[in-house]
Amino acid sequence: MKTTIITIGDEILIGTTVDTNSAWIAQQLNLLGIEVHEIISVSDESYHIMNALKRAEEQSQLILITGGLGPTNDDITKKTLAEYFGVGYKLYPEILDSLKAYFDKRGIELLERNKQLAELPENCMPIRNLKGTAWGMWFERNGKVFMSMPGVPTEMKNMMEDGVLPKLKQKFALPAILHQHIHTASIGESLLAEKLKNFEAQLPKHFKLAYLPDLGFVTLRLTARSNQKEQLELEMQQQVNLILEKVQKYVYSTAPKENFEEVLGNILVEKKLTLATAESCTGGYIAHKITSVSGSSAYYKGSIIAYDNNIKINELNISNETINTNGAVSEETVKAMVLGINEKFKTDVAIAVSGIAGPGGGTEEKPVGTVWIAVGNSANIATRKVHLPGNRLQVIKLTSVVALEMLRRYLLEIEQRKS
Amino acid sequence: MKTTIITIGDEILIGTTVDTNSAWIAQQLNLLGIEVHEIISVSDESYHIMNALKRAEEQSQLILITGGLGPTNDDITKKTLAEYFGVGYKLYPEILDSLKAYFDKRGIELLERNKQLAELPENCMPIRNLKGTAWGMWFERNGKVFMSMPGVPTEMKNMMEDGVLPKLKQKFALPAILHQHIHTASIGESLLAEKLKNFEAQLPKHFKLAYLPDLGFVTLRLTARSNQKEQLELEMQQQVNLILEKVQKYVYSTAPKENFEEVLGNILVEKKLTLATAESCTGGYIAHKITSVSGSSAYYKGSIIAYDNNIKINELNISNETINTNGAVSEETVKAMVLGINEKFKTDVAIAVSGIAGPGGGTEEKPVGTVWIAVGNSANIATRKVHLPGNRLQVIKLTSVVALEMLRRYLLEIEQRKS
Repeated sequence: MKTTIITIGDEILIGTTVDTNSAWIAQQLNLLGIEVHEIISVSDESYHIMNALKRAEEQSQLILITGGLGPTNDDITKKTLAEYFGVGYKLYPEILDSLKAYFDKRGIELLERNKQLAELPENCMPIRNLKGTAWGMWFERNGKVFMSMPGVPTEMKNMMEDGVLPKLKQKFALPAILHQHIHTASIGESLLAEKLKNFEAQLPKHFKLAYLPDLGFVTLRLTARSNQKEQLELEMQQQVNLILEKVQKYVYSTAPKENFEEVLGNILVEKKLTLATAESCTGGYIAHKITSVSGSSAYYKGSIIAYDNNIKINELNISNETINTNGAVSEETVKAMVLGINEKFKTDVAIAVSGIAGPGGGTEEKPVGTVWIAVGNSANIATRKVHLPGNRLQVIKLTSVVALEMLRRYLLEIEQRKS
Repeated sequence: MKTTIITIGDEILIGTTVDTNSAWIAQQLNLLGIEVHEIISVSDESYHIMNALKRAEEQSQLILITGGLGPTNDDITKKTLAEYFGVGYKLYPEILDSLKAYFDKRGIELLERNKQLAELPENCMPIRNLKGTAWGMWFERNGKVFMSMPGVPTEMKNMMEDGVLPKLKQKFALPAILHQHIHTASIGESLLAEKLKNFEAQLPKHFKLAYLPDLGFVTLRLTARSNQKEQLELEMQQQVNLILEKVQKYVYSTAPKENFEEVLGNILVEKKLTLATAESCTGGYIAHKITSVSGSSAYYKGSIIAYDNNIKINELNISNETINTNGAVSEETVKAMVLGINEKFKTDVAIAVSGIAGPGGGTEEKPVGTVWIAVGNSANIATRKVHLPGNRLQVIKLTSVVALEMLRRYLLEIEQRKS
């Protein structure tokens, strides 16, 4: 079933408000198997809203509208809808009662302009607003549904959950739709696509694969539609397994919504291991990502950020010779940093990084983006040299992803060796 | 001049991605006096993109398109634009050269699918992408401009600033418009508005004041339009001075675009002072903000992140008694942290924070959001206790703003006392 979302409000077109309503509505509809066909954002102008309504009615069966329902003069959605359907207004007593109760409770006088909120187009079914005073309006014409809601996110969300979604389920026979997320870290979109080329070639027509990249991460989303839900679930599992065969080692989760640092934290908790970090070029960003997880104090002890070489020498007990012979950005230095911080903070494993975040400081031998990373402890240490693209902040953030992903794999490999 | 923004991508219609690009683009266009008429979000389907392009061309003079330019199969914007204009492709050597350089630099093989990025519709003018591999495409037809950009926000923003906005200024005769930014830190939007109530009442009609809040910061943007540019510049200076009279102490810059941490770094460089940090609840975020500035190694030595109390005791030389008597979240503890880190890292000034970021760990006496901050050195130390709102990440980020802003004022006050 095709759906159009229309968001009304000058603040969106001026860019002072980001339209977060549409994404939330789209997510809710998708869970019901309703596909959003288009999102249109228009100004608080009658002709512009009329135009959008006309186009939406031509192409969709469901039209969801947010915004422009307040009591001020620039809120004209109600008037425009009455004009669009060519109808007059009527007073809805249940709305007036609820307004009286709403204002009484707050000890505020019910103004004339507020009373107008009880007058809606005569052809609509009012949908209550438990979080505010502007009720929603449900219209039907030729089997198509128009639903107008407030733009305030808390009011809109409550109205959707309380009134709109249940009515949609009742009104329409909805198809089965399945989404499966596969979260990868530390592999680029192009390389991932290369590895999945044959997989994509065999993918049945009712499946769709999307790549959702974020700095250092790519989430794969596999979507499938059919009327045979049970059969579809089986097929989905088969397709997911095919993906995992190709790229398993980059996958840190297949849960719908997953935070990478939480996944890593759970592994540390499960293995009862404590962690410390010694950072140079990342300047605290790795520590920040680790401690952004609530409860991380259970496994994370702390960090020494050695921005100055003297601090590497004095605090991490790295010999002058190690740094002078190999440089601060070297395998030997990050290994020594891991050993130094584990000893000092009495931790089981550590991450150490040293690199050139730029824009200055690069050389021909070690250009900007060169980073050495070590993870582990004195019994077992893994190291890696990477060349990362982007500006200073991107190098810092990518280093953090690569280092944390190295630790995740290190911890999983240790398990494999034990068993 | 009417403008339509078209954002392309299933992820927006499914609701997994909030379209933040449109708001950013709308803001940038508004600064040039260009009005956005409509924002349309459509799926990665050719007929759907074609449809949106047709409507946009009918109603607008400028059509900005984001998304669907990547190297994967679901990215079809380029193909659709060639079809829309009825043209073939050609190879643009400057793009191929830049791709070779991009991949060479990273030591990655240039895949065939990447080479295709150098082939664009033959009627376009390629616009370079300094942050990625997919170049933008500028088309003109009957005096109307179509500009297609990547959907990745960092790439799109850089392309707008580097190539698109300058070309728009050149191409179209835009009205005279002046903007002045006044950046404040560590004061809320409501309090700021209260202090500027009388200022706003006297503001001439051709001026407009906008509050642009970001976590911990509010930027005031004063916009003025007129055809008398010189007169307008004088008036603007007068109005800015009126604002500064009211809120000077919160203002860290009046430059068009200013990074708070850079301003702070410049003060440290100017005063030839070195800095260290000792962080508990912020877990490295303050260090990260300081080191996000290129050249910060000139004044920043490093940090000890003492997530564990034992590390506060062992590494920062805080007595057991201090922590046991007052608690880890106390004025005494953060003072001792400042002294401990300055001594250890041999720095002139330090920042120390200890607090409860939540969601767990709060008590009736010290609820979630309680943070103690100290800045300075043994000769002169400033402390402050704050109660910060929001979730874990917001408390961490707000603590960082308040602490860094405390250091900025501390450094400026020291100067005043000296002179």
